[in-house]
This record gives sequence, C-alpha cells and structure tokens, in this order.
Amino acid sequence: METLSTNKAHDGIQGVYRHVSAATGTDMTFSVFVPAHEEGETLPVVWYLSGLTCTHANVTEKGEYRRACAEHRLIFVAPDTSPRGPDVPDDPNGAYDFGLGAGFYVDATQEPWATNYRMWTYVTEELPELIGSMFPADMARQSIMGHSMGGHGALTIGLSHPARYKAVSAFAPIVAPRRVPWGQKALGHYLGPDPVAWRKHDAVALIEDGARVPELLVEQGADDQFLEGELRPDLLRKACQDAGIALSLNLRSGYDHSYYFVSTFMADHLAWHAERLG
Amino acid sequence: METLSTNKAHDGIQGVYRHVSAATGTDMTFSVFVPAHEEGETLPVVWYLSGLTCTHANVTEKGEYRRACAEHRLIFVAPDTSPRGPDVPDDPNGAYDFGLGAGFYVDATQEPWATNYRMWTYVTEELPELIGSMFPADMARQSIMGHSMGGHGALTIGLSHPARYKAVSAFAPIVAPRRVPWGQKALGHYLGPDPVAWRKHDAVALIEDGARVPELLVEQGADDQFLEGELRPDLLRKACQDAGIALSLNLRSGYDHSYYFVSTFMADHLAWHAERLG
Repeated sequence: METLSTNKAHDGIQGVYRHVSAATGTDMTFSVFVPAHEEGETLPVVWYLSGLTCTHANVTEKGEYRRACAEHRLIFVAPDTSPRGPDVPDDPNGAYDFGLGAGFYVDATQEPWATNYRMWTYVTEELPELIGSMFPADMARQSIMGHSMGGHGALTIGLSHPARYKAVSAFAPIVAPRRVPWGQKALGHYLGPDPVAWRKHDAVALIEDGARVPELLVEQGADDQFLEGELRPDLLRKACQDAGIALSLNLRSGYDHSYYFVSTFMADHLAWHAERLG
Repeated sequence: METLSTNKAHDGIQGVYRHVSAATGTDMTFSVFVPAHEEGETLPVVWYLSGLTCTHANVTEKGEYRRACAEHRLIFVAPDTSPRGPDVPDDPNGAYDFGLGAGFYVDATQEPWATNYRMWTYVTEELPELIGSMFPADMARQSIMGHSMGGHGALTIGLSHPARYKAVSAFAPIVAPRRVPWGQKALGHYLGPDPVAWRKHDAVALIEDGARVPELLVEQGADDQFLEGELRPDLLRKACQDAGIALSLNLRSGYDHSYYFVSTFMADHLAWHAERLG
C-alpha cells in the first residue's frame, strides 16, 4: 500500500492510498479518514460508496464528513467506483453510466468485463482486509452508506451481510436497478441478459427474496432530477413495508442529487451510524 | 447578473453567478450562500477571499462553511482571485503566483496589468454594490476573511476599512508581501518598483503606518510549507504588539496550507465573525 497524501483535518488524518488489487487486477486508490485516537485503540469503520463518475475524491473533498467522524470517532473509508487503467475496458461510447466510474458494485460474469470489474469482491473482501491490517480499525464494528449508485451498493451489500454491517443508509440510492435504465444497462452488460442473476444486486429484489436488516435510513432530495426515472424510492418503501423492515425515508424538499444535498445530511447519517456502532 | 447554478444546501441556497465587471473589464464569477431567512429579512455578509490558483469554486466545494453560516445566519460571498479571459495578460511563464489566479487584491498601476487587474476596486466597491442590490444582504453588517493570498487581501482590506468590516480574520495569510518572494514579485509587477507604493497592500506596513482595527483572528498551520518563506506570522505578531491590536494567532500543530486546514477551523472563524456582526 502506497500513501499518496496525508493531511491533518479535524484533529485526525485524511489519507489517500493506492494498492495493487488482486480482485480487479489494477491499481486501486481509496481514501481513509482516521480521527484522533489513543495508541493501540481501534475505532469503528463507516464505508462510503460513491456514485456514477466519482472517485474517492468527490466525497473526500465535498462530503463534509470529517467533523462528524471526529466527533463520533469513526473511521471513514471511501473506495473508488470501478477499476481504472489503460487496459480496463470501458463503455464503447465513453458513456458516464457504464464502465470506468460505474462499476455498480458487482462481480461481472460477462466478457470483456469479468476480468477487472469485480467491485463486489473488492469492497466486501479485499479492501476490508487491507483496512483491518493497515489502520486502527475495529472490524467487528462496521457500517455502510453510499450515494446514488453507491447507495445501491450500500443497500445490496448491507442486505447481503446483515451481521457484518451494524447500520446501512443511503443518499438518493438506486433501489431497484433491474427496473431502471441505469441498472438495466449496467447489470445487463456485467451480469448478462438473465434478470434472475440481477436479483442479488437489486435491493428491492433482495428484500423480496428474503434478505433482512432491522432498519434502513434513506435520504432523498425531492427535486432530484433522477428521482422518478432512476431512483424510485417508492419501490423500496413498498418492499420494506411488505417485509417489516423499518425504513426511515426522508424526502427533502428542494434538494437535488448533488453533494450539496449529501453534505447537508451527512452529519445526521453519521450520528445515526454512530449510535448503532456503539 | 447571470445565475450559473443554484443548489439547496443546509436549508439555504448555494449559488454561482457571473456578471460583467466594469472594474476588471471582464466577466467575473463568484459564489454566494444565502441561508434560510424570512421574506424581506436581510442578513450579515461574510466576505471570503481565496488564495493563489483558486477560483470561487475551491472554498465553495471544500470550505465546509455552509453548516455554520446556516446556524449563524450569515451570507457567505466568495469572489474569484483575478480577472480571467483570453485577453487578460498572464505571467509570461504561466507561473501560478502571478497573473491569472493571483490578483493579490490590488489595483495595478503598471502596464500591461493596469487595465484588468483591479481586484481592490472589484472586491471593495463593485461586487459589494452588486451583492447589496441582488441579495438579502445587510451591508451595514459586513466582515471579511481569507486564505493565504486571500488572507493578505482580508487583512489589507479590513485594516483599510475599519468601520465597514466588523470582523477581520485569516487562515495562513501572507502578512507582509513586501518582505517575501510571492509578494515582491506580484507587487513589483502590479504596482511598480517603488516599495512605498506597496505599503498600503501590506498588512504589517499598514499597521506600522497607523491603520488600526481592535482585533484580528489568524489561524496558522504549524506544518504549513509556506510558513517561514512566505507567510511570516511573526511579523504580524510584532506589528500588532507594537500597535496595541489584539491579535489571536492560533498556531495549529500538524496542519498544512490546504483546505483540510481551512475547513477544520472555518466554523470557529464564522462563530467569531457572527459574534461581532451581532
């Protein structure tokens, strides 16, 4: 693991790191904020998964999470959203919603994507091992959140590992990718045409198929341009009602899909995670 | 004035605007955050002047000021740092510390800079008029802060208008440009070789020459790479001691020159401004 930068912030250290990923077969860059702590002490870990077109940098620069992480003493990890590099296949038209910057947190099964696009394994196995070994992280206390495509990742990963993540929340998540254009394109390419294979990468389908967490927190801007076409929180509301999952779905008047929205509610989400991380 | 973008954030509106500046003879872009307020109500205005290479965007994205501005009900204005455009002369070598992105908040007297590089007039006259007419701003309650070159701007403008700005603070300011390389280069080009002309654009010289404010707040990272060579807070400390100005100079162990430093202490500075803005 190579340290690309460290900066003191809110009495902790905001770092950016790079390592060679076995999962993706590429270099991967990620950021970690570690609050001030005692020598030998370990702190809970909040995973933040980013949305389409993002790298670790968007939330690191614009997410306004460090003050709350310092207050609640939470490590904050922000992975990249896809493998990257000259040899990594991309959308043939360079579209923003597939390929580079758009890994959708799946392990692709279809060529030419299957070699590098293994973000599920990267985020759930490889990077947690690295974080646990290289940072003062209490890996028995993890939680997960994300934005947009990363909200999809947080929900599907959280629902698939209910014992591991003590809290699961999302900002403007894609809740049912198999039913919206972004998801249909990405899951079709990465996982192939059979929609049965998509269900474990679709939060609503996971719940329909029996996945359970006690509660979910979702923040959604009412003026989000992607609300009706891509995000569909109504589908998550219905699935959670049917399944008895306590969903707190906060529809926020006037807010859009941007980091101005995410940063506004970041401290609320981190406080909610901190309560559940103990 | 043209609206480039507005986003709801922390219950207020973060906007980015462009207008044709008579002072600089160019289009100028700036950002304004207006907290939630009652119809017809006006709010105090905090000016934030940015550092070398920055536009309005750096602090707007990385400054973490909106939560505190919403709490204290402060309008936050972030101008650009220089005129820009294809016809604006720049450093002949494209250096970062002069020309575009490096206006140093002076009205240049030397050609070819004198036509466009009129940031003093822009920031102290033209833009305040626009803000007062287009936003719910109480122009009887203004304060000023800045970072690095913008800290220099905040100090010199604040010291030159002690009745106008109710609070003056800075993050890692250049306090004595006539005595450091950045300042000697910029003031030499913009104002000509006679150092007497530089004194009203040098905070320490202004104080030596009799300018007074009751108090100043300065934050400085102890690990700032520019501390000894360009910033020299020791010179400000001496000048304030001699002049009887109450300087709170906070030297912060481990902090550098970046926005990770600025954003860490932004809320403290805004609380200090809010107290003085009433």
